[in-house]
Amino acid sequence: MECKPVLYTYYRSSSAARVAIALNYKGIDYEQIPVNLLKNEQLAETYVSKNPSALVPLLVIDGCELSQSVAILEYLEETRPDAPLLPKDPAQRAHVRAIVGAICCDIQPLQNLRVLRTLPEDQRPEHARSVIARGLSVVEAMLEKTAGQFCVGDEVTFADCCLIPQLINAHRYGVDMAHFPHINAIESKTSKLEPFQRAHWTKQPDCPAELSNLTF
Amino acid sequence: MECKPVLYTYYRSSSAARVAIALNYKGIDYEQIPVNLLKNEQLAETYVSKNPSALVPLLVIDGCELSQSVAILEYLEETRPDAPLLPKDPAQRAHVRAIVGAICCDIQPLQNLRVLRTLPEDQRPEHARSVIARGLSVVEAMLEKTAGQFCVGDEVTFADCCLIPQLINAHRYGVDMAHFPHINAIESKTSKLEPFQRAHWTKQPDCPAELSNLTF
Repeated sequence: MECKPVLYTYYRSSSAARVAIALNYKGIDYEQIPVNLLKNEQLAETYVSKNPSALVPLLVIDGCELSQSVAILEYLEETRPDAPLLPKDPAQRAHVRAIVGAICCDIQPLQNLRVLRTLPEDQRPEHARSVIARGLSVVEAMLEKTAGQFCVGDEVTFADCCLIPQLINAHRYGVDMAHFPHINAIESKTSKLEPFQRAHWTKQPDCPAELSNLTF
Repeated sequence: MECKPVLYTYYRSSSAARVAIALNYKGIDYEQIPVNLLKNEQLAETYVSKNPSALVPLLVIDGCELSQSVAILEYLEETRPDAPLLPKDPAQRAHVRAIVGAICCDIQPLQNLRVLRTLPEDQRPEHARSVIARGLSVVEAMLEKTAGQFCVGDEVTFADCCLIPQLINAHRYGVDMAHFPHINAIESKTSKLEPFQRAHWTKQPDCPAELSNLTF
């Protein structure tokens, strides 16, 4: 009997949301196990033994424990090629992955909970806002060359799976989105798609009830 | 006539070195154009128009301008599959990419020149040392599960292309390497391989003569 994949996740994690969108998009049924980062559950020995990085997401699938969201996206694409999230053309694939890198290497790591916790509390929002604003301006310039209906061309790709959760944090920290017309258009289009709707942070099982009515 | 690929690079950039190792490993001949990050040459309009992220590396190849080192590695693997840098098995590939993520998302972005420049000068070395030490302890734990002769199994992969340049920074900032036996063994093995030797920072055309005798 095939076991259902298990996604270790946290409702506020943009990295976990990338994987949730991809799983939804490919129609892969999965269970979620919340890991409360605020309570440091990611540091529990049982979790670290599965995922030495002590981060979410972790996906248990096909008998493997897979960490790092981008590695998981690539695995899903290689093993579940239906509903593809990469174009066929190598140069287009490289553009997708460049946008992924601009988000997952150059924005998210500089504003995640682990980094913010090293700063005085009153400096955290401004730090996050400025990192995200600068990073999104790079992404917007990349989209100028690659965007169609979505980040690269007219199909959803890894790039959209990574961009949309990052925008949640942009809104949370009050980034001025007026200069990002391509990003805004893509956000609007993806917001109508069920795989993105279902991965929204307010729809996660561990989202506190008092936050679940927020719309960004 | 085929144009020779051009790598925009900086001798101290660990991200650029990842690509240089892969190009060398696959036997792809290329030109290098140094971009002096200390002189902010990456901010020149002519460079930003090619690479909106204003970072190195940028690889111009097959008529495309490709940014983000990991995206470039994937492109090279897809278009030049000889001398492969990924295993065939999807789970093994995922392990390679997870190590890549642990380095390229969770270590390098937190200690690169752009981040260090935001800190007072006397705090920079300790910040870099602590980020790299913590990140390498994660990588060491991952290698415990995956390593053979190299990071994943007995062949060189993307993971080695990313790990070795990060170690240069570890040495530069005085990270205590005593707790990292797998990493040390892999460093020793790769140091005997020509693709890694040729990509070493002291061998780059823009490395100042007075530094080129350093051995780490």
